Amino acid sequence: MSQAAARASVADGGGFPLDDFLADVAGIEVSTELTDRRRRSRDYFWYSPILYQHLKDKVADVIVTPRDESEVMRVAAACARHHIPLTVRGGATGNYGQCVPLLGGVVLDMARLDRIEWQKPGMVRVQAGAKLFDIDAATRPNGWELRMHPSTKHMSQIGGFVAGGSGGVGSVTFGGMREPGNIVAARIVTLESEPRVIELRGDAAQKISRAYGTTGIITALEMPLAPAQPWIDVMVAFDDFIDGVRFAHAIALADGIVKKLLSPVEWPLPQHFSAFRSACPEGRSLLSAMIGEMSLESFETLLAATGGTITYRAPHEDVPGKAPLYEHAWNHTTLQVLRTDRGVTYLQCLYPHDGLVEAVEAVREKFGGGEVLQHLEFIRLNGLMTASGIPVVRYSTAERLYEIIRGFESCGVMIANPHVVTLEDGSRYKRVDADQLGFKQEVDPMGLLNPGKMRSFVPLGDGGAA
Amino acid sequence: MSQAAARASVADGGGFPLDDFLADVAGIEVSTELTDRRRRSRDYFWYSPILYQHLKDKVADVIVTPRDESEVMRVAAACARHHIPLTVRGGATGNYGQCVPLLGGVVLDMARLDRIEWQKPGMVRVQAGAKLFDIDAATRPNGWELRMHPSTKHMSQIGGFVAGGSGGVGSVTFGGMREPGNIVAARIVTLESEPRVIELRGDAAQKISRAYGTTGIITALEMPLAPAQPWIDVMVAFDDFIDGVRFAHAIALADGIVKKLLSPVEWPLPQHFSAFRSACPEGRSLLSAMIGEMSLESFETLLAATGGTITYRAPHEDVPGKAPLYEHAWNHTTLQVLRTDRGVTYLQCLYPHDGLVEAVEAVREKFGGGEVLQHLEFIRLNGLMTASGIPVVRYSTAERLYEIIRGFESCGVMIANPHVVTLEDGSRYKRVDADQLGFKQEVDPMGLLNPGKMRSFVPLGDGGAA
Repeated sequence: MSQAAARASVADGGGFPLDDFLADVAGIEVSTELTDRRRRSRDYFWYSPILYQHLKDKVADVIVTPRDESEVMRVAAACARHHIPLTVRGGATGNYGQCVPLLGGVVLDMARLDRIEWQKPGMVRVQAGAKLFDIDAATRPNGWELRMHPSTKHMSQIGGFVAGGSGGVGSVTFGGMREPGNIVAARIVTLESEPRVIELRGDAAQKISRAYGTTGIITALEMPLAPAQPWIDVMVAFDDFIDGVRFAHAIALADGIVKKLLSPVEWPLPQHFSAFRSACPEGRSLLSAMIGEMSLESFETLLAATGGTITYRAPHEDVPGKAPLYEHAWNHTTLQVLRTDRGVTYLQCLYPHDGLVEAVEAVREKFGGGEVLQHLEFIRLNGLMTASGIPVVRYSTAERLYEIIRGFESCGVMIANPHVVTLEDGSRYKRVDADQLGFKQEVDPMGLLNPGKMRSFVPLGDGGAA
Repeated sequence: MSQAAARASVADGGGFPLDDFLADVAGIEVSTELTDRRRRSRDYFWYSPILYQHLKDKVADVIVTPRDESEVMRVAAACARHHIPLTVRGGATGNYGQCVPLLGGVVLDMARLDRIEWQKPGMVRVQAGAKLFDIDAATRPNGWELRMHPSTKHMSQIGGFVAGGSGGVGSVTFGGMREPGNIVAARIVTLESEPRVIELRGDAAQKISRAYGTTGIITALEMPLAPAQPWIDVMVAFDDFIDGVRFAHAIALADGIVKKLLSPVEWPLPQHFSAFRSACPEGRSLLSAMIGEMSLESFETLLAATGGTITYRAPHEDVPGKAPLYEHAWNHTTLQVLRTDRGVTYLQCLYPHDGLVEAVEAVREKFGGGEVLQHLEFIRLNGLMTASGIPVVRYSTAERLYEIIRGFESCGVMIANPHVVTLEDGSRYKRVDADQLGFKQEVDPMGLLNPGKMRSFVPLGDGGAA
């Protein structure tokens, strides 16, 4: 790595000599064309003005698109032999530069490893490049669906979601991706001159969750499914955002009410929900929800005791080309605003499970006037119902953004800073899992997998290789 | 009621003159034969030596078995006209004398109102006398099952469960019966000279939950269902009961692990589990669990870090004539012991959600030596994971039993005393829901429904009737 780290990353790649590498991967699809390399070296990091400055010029030297695992192994072997960094690219819908090659080298585009290997009741095994949308489309006819998906379900791949995401639509019931039981198995390829295939089962799958692909190249995943439910998309308008939060919290805690999404959104954010214009009355905050059809009447009964009004209610359907309700929650909320207003960015919050509503009020008090607009995503963590949040923040300077972070923290809200590129800085606890660190020494001894993302990793070296 | 309350309840009935009543209900099946009346005036109250003394001689004057709702209405009208108490009988599997006619009068046997009216995805509408076992058998082929059932699923009726039960197998996921969303609608007949039929919907169904039939005669229920899962029955043996509790708690909190039952049982209780003899090694405490098939590997992975050993694992099947694993949990645990040892009774506990394991340890410390044997039933209440418990208690005197209750309370465990017959005394908060009290004035103005069970009810009288 010292060799790679010493190189200045430049706008047309890391400057790695490719001839020997390309000879080694002959027959595998590669692209060295600059426009294509630039396009496939990016994700949605540009939501952050800070990351944008930091990442916009990072470019891979070559994009490789394997067709199957044996090609992945050939690429891994070639990278190990020639000491070239390898960064895995999934759907590239992340916001933290997860698939940006900080030091150039190879970007491994997983789009062709998109096969569904098998289905059983409650379980699916898929290649890492399968799109979440396609997986759901394949499992729903059998009565099952993915337990959770990001708001980018239409574009995201399962491998990228597991490697980067911490939860999403469905986490209000099943908790975060890392909760025990939410990943059954992962198959990985090591980055060595003679790559191994390792099948991680049970809790071992935790070794690859939210590691940005630094702990092995994920080629397949066995994911537990949820019974496919008849979901109803519902929007409820409230005069006061806090009333919406309070109602959503009550529904979140009502274990008899089946739900997949509970997202209270502060006005004027709904102004930007153009696909649901008529359901977003002027001046009113919203709750976007996905409720099990059999629970809708109970939901409405509890709603009757509040000041909320249902403005939209329709069976959930997810078809290409139509923006579903969940594309107005999680970090898609930020995207809806960015479409017309490039002056905003966002934060990632975890509200306290105890005193949740009070924390939301305290934040509103501190940042009145529109600089910070809150929306919450209810989620179970460690068996407790709480809410994450991805507030939309008017951006002025990095200093002010850090002031705002401290303001949230003073209200008892934890921040996972999304304006940094390393796993550690982006974690709520500012560290990487010890297990993952140790495991990385085994599977990537030279530290060539997505280098720069796991800051605390120091390769012990593998003098024998290359 | 003053008239009825004044009567001494005697061993062959309340002594109500029946001629006019019987004339009014001509054509409806009635039984006045003493053996039959005695048999159908009882439930499983005899688990409690205290209730046994109090209730063993209570007998209805007549058992009426209506075929449909119109017959129920004729019986209700006749009871109102002649001021005769009416106590509804379901499967009679309760333990608190819920269906024992304290003042004699009519026992209304609901067994013939057992029709499944309709099914929709996630929902079933049934008559109140339908057995839980039959409902599940009818809905599972369509991919759905009841969200929760008592351990007496083979005999219990849905009306009795809703009217008396607070939860059961499945509550570890869906919470108690009373949690919002767990009863969608109830149809009741009022006790008036001109009975009305009232359809209670949404949260209104809370008016009949755990009211012992004092707030109207339930004739039909609309119940939300859970997706039918492939369940695996699992038993795990632990050297130390507390290790089993700790592991069960971890599984309870793991929202990615699908489960329907988590019951750690202290040795030597498993000695009495004759149907699972080979799975109950000498000297070891047990965890009985129902785990979703897709979560079994994750369950086993977490188990590997503990000292537990799986002693039984098989796909759950529920067929008549074979004791399923869940008949060794909840209050069936007490029954398994009572089969060979009549010297025990039980208590009903709610352990604190915070400091749960510590409370179990404190109780064990206080009552070592076998007088109290604990088993827990993990359950969600108000959105928090906690455990109820139905410890088996060696019975000596009522005084000692009350001492033990105070001992539990001193360990932070709440007791719902199962050795009393009124709703109030049996509640953890020693009161009946204000809503239910007010509602009872509307639907049973003379206080003839299951008189004596809702202690705080004072009829305002209905001078016009009768």
